[in-house]
This record gives sequence, C-alpha cells and structure tokens, in this order.
Amino acid sequence: MFSKKLKQLTPYTPGEQPQNRKYIKLNTNENPYPPSPEVKKYLDSVDTDTLKLYPDPGSQELRETIGNYFNLSSSMVFTGNGSDEVLSFCFYAFFDKDNGPLLFPEHSYSFYPVYCGFYDIPFKRIPMKSDLSISVDAYTVETDYSGIIFPNPNAPTGTYLETAEIEQFMKKVHSNRVVIIDEAYIDFGGKSAISLIDKFDNLLIVQTLSKSRSLAGLRVGFAMGNEILISALNTVKDSFNSYPLDKLAQNAAKLAIEDIDYFKENSSKIIKTREFTVKALKSMNWEVLPSMANFIFIRKKELSGKIVYETLKNKGLLVRYFGHKGIEDFVRVTIGKRKDMEFFLDLLNTTWGK
Amino acid sequence: MFSKKLKQLTPYTPGEQPQNRKYIKLNTNENPYPPSPEVKKYLDSVDTDTLKLYPDPGSQELRETIGNYFNLSSSMVFTGNGSDEVLSFCFYAFFDKDNGPLLFPEHSYSFYPVYCGFYDIPFKRIPMKSDLSISVDAYTVETDYSGIIFPNPNAPTGTYLETAEIEQFMKKVHSNRVVIIDEAYIDFGGKSAISLIDKFDNLLIVQTLSKSRSLAGLRVGFAMGNEILISALNTVKDSFNSYPLDKLAQNAAKLAIEDIDYFKENSSKIIKTREFTVKALKSMNWEVLPSMANFIFIRKKELSGKIVYETLKNKGLLVRYFGHKGIEDFVRVTIGKRKDMEFFLDLLNTTWGK
Repeated sequence: MFSKKLKQLTPYTPGEQPQNRKYIKLNTNENPYPPSPEVKKYLDSVDTDTLKLYPDPGSQELRETIGNYFNLSSSMVFTGNGSDEVLSFCFYAFFDKDNGPLLFPEHSYSFYPVYCGFYDIPFKRIPMKSDLSISVDAYTVETDYSGIIFPNPNAPTGTYLETAEIEQFMKKVHSNRVVIIDEAYIDFGGKSAISLIDKFDNLLIVQTLSKSRSLAGLRVGFAMGNEILISALNTVKDSFNSYPLDKLAQNAAKLAIEDIDYFKENSSKIIKTREFTVKALKSMNWEVLPSMANFIFIRKKELSGKIVYETLKNKGLLVRYFGHKGIEDFVRVTIGKRKDMEFFLDLLNTTWGK
Repeated sequence: MFSKKLKQLTPYTPGEQPQNRKYIKLNTNENPYPPSPEVKKYLDSVDTDTLKLYPDPGSQELRETIGNYFNLSSSMVFTGNGSDEVLSFCFYAFFDKDNGPLLFPEHSYSFYPVYCGFYDIPFKRIPMKSDLSISVDAYTVETDYSGIIFPNPNAPTGTYLETAEIEQFMKKVHSNRVVIIDEAYIDFGGKSAISLIDKFDNLLIVQTLSKSRSLAGLRVGFAMGNEILISALNTVKDSFNSYPLDKLAQNAAKLAIEDIDYFKENSSKIIKTREFTVKALKSMNWEVLPSMANFIFIRKKELSGKIVYETLKNKGLLVRYFGHKGIEDFVRVTIGKRKDMEFFLDLLNTTWGK
C-alpha cells in the first residue's frame, strides 16, 4: 500500500517535548522570554469572525513588514510554516541529483539529511576544522555539487562566520548553484549576510521567528533572496499547499517583527546570560565552543555526553544530546533565563565539581 | 540554479481573494457564519507566553478530540496544516509511479493533478456519468493503479455517493491500494464513510475544519484510517516539517470540534439556504446539479460559464469558473447567508431573466 519513497524515509527526531513531568527545558533552543506584548494585544482583540475566510495565500502584509525591516522589496521575501517548511521547499526547488550532491557541514542541523532523503537528493558532509568551526576552504575544493547549505551560526556547535568570510566564500563557489545560509540563530550577536544578496543572485538567507522573536509555537519562517529564487519557492508552495500560513500567524508575526526594541532587548539579555554562563563553565573546567547563538555546545574531560544528558534529565533539567560520531562528548545547552542557568551551573557543580 | 522537478511544476490556482474591492464572495466555499464562540473565548484569554515554546509536534489533544468525536482511537487520526497538506502527505506516502497511475474523477478537485506533478505520480482521469456524477463502475474496470482518490460530495459538481455505494466500491477495488475519500464537504447533508474504516484497511477519510467549522483562516485538516496508514503519514510529516500545526490552531480546532451543537446548527442553516437557492434557480430555468455540499454547480442554456462569471464579478459578486472541457458552461456558487443568495438570485434575474 505504500510508495517506494516512503519505505526509504528516516524521519527527523525533534528535541523532547515531555508532557508528563515539568523540566527546566534547555534542549530545544526556545526563547525564555515571551513574545512581544503586541502579540498578546492582537489576540485579545482579534475578530475571530474573519477566521471563516481563507488567509491571504501570499502573506503579502507580512512579507512587506519583513521587507521593510531588511530594506528589501516584498518580492524578495518568501514566508512559510516555520523555517523547517521554508527549508523543505528550498530543497525541492534548488537541489537535484542530476547536478551532484548537496554539501553541508559534517555536524549541522540534522534535518538537512532528512530533507535529502525525502526528495532523493544525494549529499556530502564536508569536514570541519579541528575546533569544530566551518572550514570554508573544504567547500571551495569541491567541483561538483547541486548546492550548499549551512547554518550561521552553525547548529549544534554555535560557531559563526563573519559576513566578510561569507563574501569570500560566495566568490569562490559556482555562481549557478544556490547557497542557503540558515540564519535561525543570527540575532544573538551575529550579523546577517543579507547585505550580500544584491551581489550574489544565488544566495538565499533563511530566518525564523521561533528563536529571537519567541514564537516557536506559531510556526513562521522566511527566506530572502533574488526575486527569481523567491518566485521558485512560490511555485513549490503553490504545488504543495496554497495557504501554509494561517491568519493569526501572519498577523502576529507581523507585529513581532515590528516590535524592534522589544526583540533587541530580549536578544541582549540572552547574550549577556550566555556570556555569564560561558565564563562560569570555563571556571568549572568545561570546554565551551565559541557561540554566537542562544545555545552553547559543551563538554568536560572524561565525561561522555550521554552521561551528562541522562544525569541532568534525572535531576529535572533537559539538554540536547546528539551522540553523532565526533561530537559524542558534547551536549547542547539552550541559554534560558539567568536563574535557569544558575540552577544548571549548580547542578553541574554539585554533580561533577570543578 | 533550479531542480529539474521545479521546471515541470504547474501550481494550483486558488480561488480569487481580492484585496482591492469588496465583493460578495461566493467563490471559495467558505462558511458564511463565524467559527464557534468558544474559539473567540479561547483567543481572548490565551496565554501568549506559551507561544515561546514549540507546539506539541503530534497534536495529541486535538487528535484525541477528533477521535472522541468519531469514536476512534487517536492513533487512527492524523492532523495537518489544512486538508491540502494532509492530502499532499497522502500522495507522497501511498502513490507511486511503479504501481501504476492514481485514479480520480474527470472533473474533481484541481489540486489532485498538481500533487501528482509535485511528486511525479502518473494519473488517469476517470470518465463521469453523463449527469456528471461519479461512475463507480468506471473505476472497477481498471486493473492497474497505485490508488484512488475522490471527493464525496465531489467538487466542483456537488454530487454525492451513499455509504452503501462506497462499500460496494471498496469490495471491488484492489485491497492493496489505498483509497482516499476527501470529505471536505461531507457535513452539508452527506454521511461520512468513516464507518467503513474498520472493514477496509486501505480506506482513508480526509476532512477539514475550513468548511463546516468555519475555520478556513486557521488551516487545520485531518485524516482517519487504519493505524498503519496513519503511521505512514506521521513518517512523511516528520521528514518534511515536525511541527506543521501551531499552538493556537491546535487549541482552537479542538474547541471547534467539541462545539457540536453550534456546528450542526450552522450546517442546517446552510442546507436550508441551499434548498431555497436551488428551488429559486430552477424556477428561473437554471440547471442545478444535485448538491450535498455548501456550493452548487449551475448553468443556463445558451450562456457560457465565463460570461456568467465575468458579468457577476463586474457587479460585485464572485463565483468560481473553471473553464475545463466538459464543464465550460458551469459556474460553482458557494452557499452564503440567505441575504447573499437573494442578492445573487436578483442579479441573475435582472441580468438574464427567466
């Protein structure tokens, strides 16, 4: 009864969302602060009668708001049901087994190989530097590929490439192959590479409202790039589901993007808490990769990542453990509120000392 | 820069959603009544802080509510971002070019061939009876197919198959091929074939909250069937986007399903208005296909559907015109409130008389 494709799928496993017990959740990179108060005001007074009508299939107002924020025309913006859906559409539109494998970092967002499986796209994991940062040179030696994708900052490592490095990179890769920079975590100290899309027609930037805008529960993501790339994404959307963004999500996302001060304030608080946490961890002899994200990737000598994850879970705190070869010793820890991080640090200290 | 697949796509064209002028919209089968007042109460008091967290990826509570309503276990229910997304996942999971074409009615939901294009599934349009109803016999003579899909009531014709006819049909088709009944319009006088899913492991029923629950703006659809079919849909979802349903949509949909009295009252009002409209149209010498949906499919001798559509649009009323061969003379008219239909009937009368 099933398609051949189905039998070959290996689905993505999202981070745990346990319903049975209250945990301190530092495992899915959610924002510890609530979304903009404008979202609450909007929902408190929303005219639910309008929900009987279909939403705008093109999310025009939301795309204009995003365009205004980034100083782009709305025709250079595509919106979707979380950046996961946006990425899925990108994989369909731009990558193709006939053009060679898709390249992405050895340790990266684990949905990338899943999309490749879904659309039958071959891929090649590109080795990272010994410090687990992305090696630009390792891509530019490749000659045959259908495209490139990497997060910046990278997940789960947190390491970051400067815009100048990305510009050099873009000059060296094939101009007829799409390069996607997944900037889910860009607002925690990094600088978006959006300034490069005028220079490179093959560059697409993907962002989400799930992290820095505290709207993981609302599922809104977007892509920005040359109009021709955006138009391809619209063709894919309209061949899959004309209305992926509901009316409440479109309007709430718009208000969250417009509330710039609130967003900046929250992002700074998270950066500050990250710096505090990193300093404390180092003083306790944990290794912490340099992070520009709202999470850190850490390990301690002679401790396996699995033990750290399980021990903390038993004590009511969730972190993310991947267990992939080369990063088995690490766990990824989301930056929560200061008091969450203090609890986390205390736990580490009482369990493993310095 | 594009994949080969992309170049071959022909996207779906949704009904017009004009933003520039106020129309009486009888073109996209929306419900003229607002969603359940419980939806408003919920949104008025929703704790927006929880939107910072990811929603339940499995929509467990919503699936339980739907299961309770239909007297099924939640493991026999799958939810998605509108029945369009649910259908898209079904096409991926169950249909396959290696198993032969997908069969669907000659005149049917125009997204079906689009999904086939998206996933590279061959299809065969099965001829309808001369009265434009679905011919069950025309399917059972086919020997080689990967699956079957049809809406019941059918769109855009509105014609309906009784459960007993569907049961006979299911006995005759291959038991190792999935049959999907798209019941988007079942609540306007028809009876769901849900009682058959215990008898046929290969039967999947798809419904939506966009029509009878007045929630087109919220994008929630669902599928019901054997656990093995539902588990296949979960695999597809988790390989595409783990969280297709946002938190507000999950909770509001739950409340709308639970408010049974309100839903029944609205559906009866629409059925009554449909019967009123059909009677009036017939007295004005319009041909009306028998409809069990919240729309009717109509034509008048010596009038082209295109002229009817364009004339009404100029006068501020939108209906849907398809223009496909064999149904060029028809327009599809959504059943609105009584006063909308009176306006519509007056327009027809003053323009084309009896």
